[in-house]
Amino acid sequence: MAVSCPEATNLTTAPYSTEHILSNTDADNANRTLPFSIVKLPHLTDFLRDLQTHPNPLDRNPFYHPSDGFYVSHTDVILRHILYDLSSPPHSTAYHRAGPRNRVFFDPSQTRAAIVTCGGLCPGLNTVIRELVVALWDLYGVRQIFGVKAGYWGFYSSEPVELNPKLVHSLHKKGGTLLETSRGGFDLHKIVDAIRDRGFNQVYIIGGDGSMRGAVKIFDEIRCRKLNIAVVGIPKTVDNDIGIIDRSFGFQTAVEMAQQAINAALVEAESAVNGIGLVKLMGRSTGHIALYATLSSRDVDCCLIPEIEFYLEGKGGLFEFLEQRLKEYGHAVLVVAEGAGQDMIPRTDEQKEERDESGNPVFLDVGGWLKSELKNWWARDHPNELFTVKYIDPTYMIRAVPANATDNLYCTLLAHSAIHGVMAGYTGFVAGPINGNYAYIPLEEVARAKNEVDIKDHKWAWVRSVTNQPEFVRN
Amino acid sequence: MAVSCPEATNLTTAPYSTEHILSNTDADNANRTLPFSIVKLPHLTDFLRDLQTHPNPLDRNPFYHPSDGFYVSHTDVILRHILYDLSSPPHSTAYHRAGPRNRVFFDPSQTRAAIVTCGGLCPGLNTVIRELVVALWDLYGVRQIFGVKAGYWGFYSSEPVELNPKLVHSLHKKGGTLLETSRGGFDLHKIVDAIRDRGFNQVYIIGGDGSMRGAVKIFDEIRCRKLNIAVVGIPKTVDNDIGIIDRSFGFQTAVEMAQQAINAALVEAESAVNGIGLVKLMGRSTGHIALYATLSSRDVDCCLIPEIEFYLEGKGGLFEFLEQRLKEYGHAVLVVAEGAGQDMIPRTDEQKEERDESGNPVFLDVGGWLKSELKNWWARDHPNELFTVKYIDPTYMIRAVPANATDNLYCTLLAHSAIHGVMAGYTGFVAGPINGNYAYIPLEEVARAKNEVDIKDHKWAWVRSVTNQPEFVRN
Amino acid sequence: MAVSCPEATNLTTAPYSTEHILSNTDADNANRTLPFSIVKLPHLTDFLRDLQTHPNPLDRNPFYHPSDGFYVSHTDVILRHILYDLSSPPHSTAYHRAGPRNRVFFDPSQTRAAIVTCGGLCPGLNTVIRELVVALWDLYGVRQIFGVKAGYWGFYSSEPVELNPKLVHSLHKKGGTLLETSRGGFDLHKIVDAIRDRGFNQVYIIGGDGSMRGAVKIFDEIRCRKLNIAVVGIPKTVDNDIGIIDRSFGFQTAVEMAQQAINAALVEAESAVNGIGLVKLMGRSTGHIALYATLSSRDVDCCLIPEIEFYLEGKGGLFEFLEQRLKEYGHAVLVVAEGAGQDMIPRTDEQKEERDESGNPVFLDVGGWLKSELKNWWARDHPNELFTVKYIDPTYMIRAVPANATDNLYCTLLAHSAIHGVMAGYTGFVAGPINGNYAYIPLEEVARAKNEVDIKDHKWAWVRSVTNQPEFVRN
Amino acid sequence: MAVSCPEATNLTTAPYSTEHILSNTDADNANRTLPFSIVKLPHLTDFLRDLQTHPNPLDRNPFYHPSDGFYVSHTDVILRHILYDLSSPPHSTAYHRAGPRNRVFFDPSQTRAAIVTCGGLCPGLNTVIRELVVALWDLYGVRQIFGVKAGYWGFYSSEPVELNPKLVHSLHKKGGTLLETSRGGFDLHKIVDAIRDRGFNQVYIIGGDGSMRGAVKIFDEIRCRKLNIAVVGIPKTVDNDIGIIDRSFGFQTAVEMAQQAINAALVEAESAVNGIGLVKLMGRSTGHIALYATLSSRDVDCCLIPEIEFYLEGKGGLFEFLEQRLKEYGHAVLVVAEGAGQDMIPRTDEQKEERDESGNPVFLDVGGWLKSELKNWWARDHPNELFTVKYIDPTYMIRAVPANATDNLYCTLLAHSAIHGVMAGYTGFVAGPINGNYAYIPLEEVARAKNEVDIKDHKWAWVRSVTNQPEFVRN
Repeated sequence: MAVSCPEATNLTTAPYSTEHILSNTDADNANRTLPFSIVKLPHLTDFLRDLQTHPNPLDRNPFYHPSDGFYVSHTDVILRHILYDLSSPPHSTAYHRAGPRNRVFFDPSQTRAAIVTCGGLCPGLNTVIRELVVALWDLYGVRQIFGVKAGYWGFYSSEPVELNPKLVHSLHKKGGTLLETSRGGFDLHKIVDAIRDRGFNQVYIIGGDGSMRGAVKIFDEIRCRKLNIAVVGIPKTVDNDIGIIDRSFGFQTAVEMAQQAINAALVEAESAVNGIGLVKLMGRSTGHIALYATLSSRDVDCCLIPEIEFYLEGKGGLFEFLEQRLKEYGHAVLVVAEGAGQDMIPRTDEQKEERDESGNPVFLDVGGWLKSELKNWWARDHPNELFTVKYIDPTYMIRAVPANATDNLYCTLLAHSAIHGVMAGYTGFVAGPINGNYAYIPLEEVARAKNEVDIKDHKWAWVRSVTNQPEFVRN
Repeated sequence: MAVSCPEATNLTTAPYSTEHILSNTDADNANRTLPFSIVKLPHLTDFLRDLQTHPNPLDRNPFYHPSDGFYVSHTDVILRHILYDLSSPPHSTAYHRAGPRNRVFFDPSQTRAAIVTCGGLCPGLNTVIRELVVALWDLYGVRQIFGVKAGYWGFYSSEPVELNPKLVHSLHKKGGTLLETSRGGFDLHKIVDAIRDRGFNQVYIIGGDGSMRGAVKIFDEIRCRKLNIAVVGIPKTVDNDIGIIDRSFGFQTAVEMAQQAINAALVEAESAVNGIGLVKLMGRSTGHIALYATLSSRDVDCCLIPEIEFYLEGKGGLFEFLEQRLKEYGHAVLVVAEGAGQDMIPRTDEQKEERDESGNPVFLDVGGWLKSELKNWWARDHPNELFTVKYIDPTYMIRAVPANATDNLYCTLLAHSAIHGVMAGYTGFVAGPINGNYAYIPLEEVARAKNEVDIKDHKWAWVRSVTNQPEFVRN
Repeated sequence: MAVSCPEATNLTTAPYSTEHILSNTDADNANRTLPFSIVKLPHLTDFLRDLQTHPNPLDRNPFYHPSDGFYVSHTDVILRHILYDLSSPPHSTAYHRAGPRNRVFFDPSQTRAAIVTCGGLCPGLNTVIRELVVALWDLYGVRQIFGVKAGYWGFYSSEPVELNPKLVHSLHKKGGTLLETSRGGFDLHKIVDAIRDRGFNQVYIIGGDGSMRGAVKIFDEIRCRKLNIAVVGIPKTVDNDIGIIDRSFGFQTAVEMAQQAINAALVEAESAVNGIGLVKLMGRSTGHIALYATLSSRDVDCCLIPEIEFYLEGKGGLFEFLEQRLKEYGHAVLVVAEGAGQDMIPRTDEQKEERDESGNPVFLDVGGWLKSELKNWWARDHPNELFTVKYIDPTYMIRAVPANATDNLYCTLLAHSAIHGVMAGYTGFVAGPINGNYAYIPLEEVARAKNEVDIKDHKWAWVRSVTNQPEFVRN
Repeated sequence: MAVSCPEATNLTTAPYSTEHILSNTDADNANRTLPFSIVKLPHLTDFLRDLQTHPNPLDRNPFYHPSDGFYVSHTDVILRHILYDLSSPPHSTAYHRAGPRNRVFFDPSQTRAAIVTCGGLCPGLNTVIRELVVALWDLYGVRQIFGVKAGYWGFYSSEPVELNPKLVHSLHKKGGTLLETSRGGFDLHKIVDAIRDRGFNQVYIIGGDGSMRGAVKIFDEIRCRKLNIAVVGIPKTVDNDIGIIDRSFGFQTAVEMAQQAINAALVEAESAVNGIGLVKLMGRSTGHIALYATLSSRDVDCCLIPEIEFYLEGKGGLFEFLEQRLKEYGHAVLVVAEGAGQDMIPRTDEQKEERDESGNPVFLDVGGWLKSELKNWWARDHPNELFTVKYIDPTYMIRAVPANATDNLYCTLLAHSAIHGVMAGYTGFVAGPINGNYAYIPLEEVARAKNEVDIKDHKWAWVRSVTNQPEFVRN
């Protein structure tokens, strides 16, 4: 039976208060006030006081030489804000640096790790799985490694599969996830009971923002029950919509693959009279893929993202802009993020109610809607002129490919960082790059953070200067 | 003003009667009855008796050595039927072989060529354009070469663009068509008037089956008006649905590109619980791309094409088959040609009336329909089990790429063959490979021929043996 | 102990005499003289008179419907010469058509098949292996299928590995050969003894021209010993240097991949002052890859192949040509087949003696030699001018890739054709496409045939017209 | 005539002393001691006191809204050291942040920009050229933009070509450099005279470390002559061997492309008996490409780089390691950076003297040498066993490709940053990313900095743990 743990919510209210360096880490520096505070990281010893530590198995690894400076210590931190305005210096924060610690809180022979993948596909998923398995096995000598099938649902509905390095040897060259994935299926108590009953003491959760919020709840429940189980999140979002970390894995592969679709749209547009090539790219709440794909391609005439409002008709609207482009160049390429313009698409009553398996409101197909609006507009305003819209939705052809070299490397560093942290007893955290260096960040902070495109900064201005697209500001 | 030419239709009733070799070509062989008849090819001299000939400019080309056997003569033919059953030998036909003739009917300095591309995109279009321009220029010394913009419509609606080798130098590395294309716009008299008024005496028409039927009419009209203008068709159909010739250009590139989509579908299907990957491939009346892509990939569980009827429910139906596959393997990949199952998709009254610009009935989206039917079926029969359908329509990403090396070479040979034929005075014909050798075929014969998948031959049996898919025969 | 079989050589002197149709196959047609003779195919019953036949297992295969016309009969032939000059019709030959026969000479439960790959890598090797395994298993119900490791050497030196469809499922997506390969190691008696001792009764030999000659000897020895073992050759030569058949598998993939190298050479050449990009492509005795890669690319300024002699210095030589090109365009791209110019490269005494494992004379690196000659020439003639040669040898990056879609399909048809022939009792033969249709050809005929580039035909003239390269004819 | 400027060397002795924030930028913060010093950046006003400033033309650009925070000010800096050990905090440095300034020192109508590319090819060169041209034109309204042909040599030996956005529109999709490149040709006075005589006042130098040292000299000479000419360096090194900045452009594309070669090597090795695949990758003084390619691929058994010494024979040597690998797996893949093992390769006297055009010692072909050593070793120690080494040198096929999406974006940001800095009057500097943010760094500092692989840190330990390769430490 599930153990109820009503106080869990209380516990989570504010555990992540930043700590001043003077108070708890470095008495020798007492006479200096450093211009940042350090973000506290949950640790198994927060609720299990008497855990034993062990020497790091890397000490005995023939390929590592834990000499001076090899192990990262609790006093190594990474500054988050490195842009510094001297006229008004920010009060910055710092995160604990990722990497192996000289003492670990798990005996490899007693370690039993579970890996689960949740949500949609993303290039690199299989690389992360592979590297978790290989590094747990080779670096730390863990021999009990399991894959939970098909997302959260799989914890309580299917038998875990045992994993080993041989099984995953070439996995990084395949798209998708060996473990299968699913949306939804989050049943907190069933999941935590299953984790406990199967004897897992390390849980690696690879998933998107919804899954990260689920991971926070699992961590809270485990803490409340005082179970000796570490939980780590590995943020997976091809949209790059998770904050704090530099970028999410698979994102660069996605931007690369999106070029194919944009090229096809350009060719179709150029080969028609008044041809419009319309590409829908992933990005429900943020337009990063659309933005980066536009900037990398330079063949895009207009890029529409969720962060900006746009309108079709009238002065300064999309139709006016496209009309001018067609007049001047004979064709135009339009990139639209899937979350753009959701408010403008008429919804049936049924659609207003609908929710996807993760409880998110159902997104309507902005590409199909735009295509139809464009056709209607042209037929109305230019009844006797040729016009063509070719609509390309490359979503699955983008997200189902294996990670490119850059993302492969990134996934490996992510996986290793996560393992080092878990072995060191950290829990309820996420590993990820901050300013190019791997750090540990509280899961809850990541689950809350958004990473929207800042349409006030240079990059968006730059998109507009590349595309010369309108600002969509009604006078 | 357009010259009316009412007798044109009479002329075309049966001009392509086969001719017996004994009667008109080879008196020396009179004592042998050859087991084939030769398909007669229209020639400018059929209706313009007094045309002068010139030595072939290749005689003076430093790179060609018109020694013995270099020039192809009217007595060189290619056998169409090379499968020979000794127990009942077929009466075969033969086509005139493509290649340079030693006398030509055009003075290069007086030649004015027009090139037009009609219909949808196809890999290799730009290569054909490039090679027509380069070979007319370099091999025959023609200097007046024009591109007609945007299909048939462009003859009478836009200014032709002058072309030269420098302009088209790298064209074969780009997808699409430099000349733009459009559907419809076929206005016979306007087109022939424009051809005459602009002084074109060679017309190269690159287009699909509808465009080839248009080309027949143009040729008939020109013949009726007795204009000294040669018309040649270059069949363009990514679907490979044109008969007689071995295959159409761009087809192999399309099959290659389709692998990407099938791979993505497989990854999506494998990464889900009861996952189905559904790929729609080009092929309105024929399923060649779907068939070849299936055979090349081997990851497809079921391939549906226009040539076979299938059904969803009941014994031997698609649902039963998929249910079994999901049970056994956990996932399935479905490839469907766009013309498959059109009779099964419910049409609104409006859809029943609709026609595309070429006058073809509008095709409904069989992929979208199947996806929806599959979801309904599963929700009905397995209400509490996970299920996913991912639908991929890679059409534009396939057809907008440049031709691969194989198709590039093919396009070049096509273009050269067409030019050699036109220079030799042939008209109303198509150049194309028959059993691997380039031949000249009457346009009308090509316009009439279909190339359906023979579902009674080995290849279709083989698809079924690869996929193990049902036969869809109701008991 | 090896059974000696001295009369073997006698047997092979002339077994492939063509047979006149009237004399032995089709009495009903006695009153017609067909204009071709049929190439006789060796059959197990030539030396084993009393072999039993069985109904074809396809009769019971749920995916095949051996209705009328499904099975190919001994009277189905394929014409080799389809270009027909009416003024002097050739006396043509015909080959037996490939395909399933209605009676087979092997009981699947008693069939024990061996597959071996010899010589260098070629795209598609793994596809052929895969399809042999899958079709033997699925179509004919054979369950004893073995891979012989590492070429001929493996017959007598290593344990065969058992193969099944599951093991080879994704093999066609991998380059190389699962079975490993090696050169040489041909020890006739050891090989035939091993075949007999291991109980193999079907031997599939995939290899180049040297290996095909070895296969002829194995077949002769088996025939001499009157063993009930069928031997089939599957010609593998990325160079496309095997005659009679239309082309060899992997060739089109190789031509495709060669484009990458030519593109790189062009970029390097264009980005330098007086830059020359030099690409060496496969082709020891024939220049097909160089030729086709040149024609597909169109960025090549000069293509050198074994079939033409060329010279460097003086009027009409390579240096003069390049000098002019550099003057005019500032750069040039040179493609050279590895077998070109072998006579011009100075050999040390040691090199004169050297032979490779297959007994072929060692080829010297024409690319390295040319690069050095070019540098010396320029330094001598233009001492103060910038000059760059970039030499690219993409051999292994070309031949190690998986087959593309076109070659994948071709490999499958090859494998199926081979199996159908062997099951029907044919032996000492090769399956391959003739004029686009699959036929059976005596092994010995294939082993003898060459496929050189005809430098007198249109295609070579065309290369010269594309590249404008000199004819290398000294005045 | 060249103006001699003997005091130039004196000037450069120590111009880049760091400045304390308190002393010159931010009086308000006088009471805080910040834990970093700011690296001083050369500025035209250092030697030309009375230059006028202008409002930034971006003020009038319809796509930019220079609201609060848009312009970067002199007080915006970027911290270099963001890894912070609380127990011994480093004294860090900070660089001025890149970005547009609100006042510029050039009147666009008087601006005359020169762009030059020096040294070897690198993916992204054309993107940098394109973006310099487009951004100068579109963002700042500069209309006189010139390309200097063929490196430093081109300044005084060839006519510059005028560039504009239309000309470079699709340049980022092509490999190589539109401007051609060359090594050497550095003649300081001729170059500075040419810059002055042609009226260039902005010089963009794209090149490797040697070229950056040349750029420092040009800057010094200009400063000494007190010419109103800004010089900016854009470091180009596919090897990633330039320090301070995060990475150089083209590097990620190179790592991606290297995967192809490693894959081919693996296939060749696996398909042979005792097969070794040997890949040489770029990297003269540093092994970054080899390192990253190894980590991304995971198919590499041993990675040899310039930063480590290795040896062949004896205990712990390469041969012993390979012998064990071949025994265990039957094959091995070896990646070697071109600069590795240079001391071990025997040099002829001639080779000892040789220098390349940039004055660097000539590198011997470590791949060819290793291949030969491996063959000798095996022939000696295993005379009767099969063995194969396949050596792949993909250098030109890697460096001649266009930049991938990631590098394209990076190149654009580089180009924009450089322009913003030059327009703001900075000179003798480099723009580049530091911890993910674009900063300005003194040219001299970049020219001096190296970026060697730290073989004591986690990443190298990680390579060894991935490959399990020996440490090459003799006992």
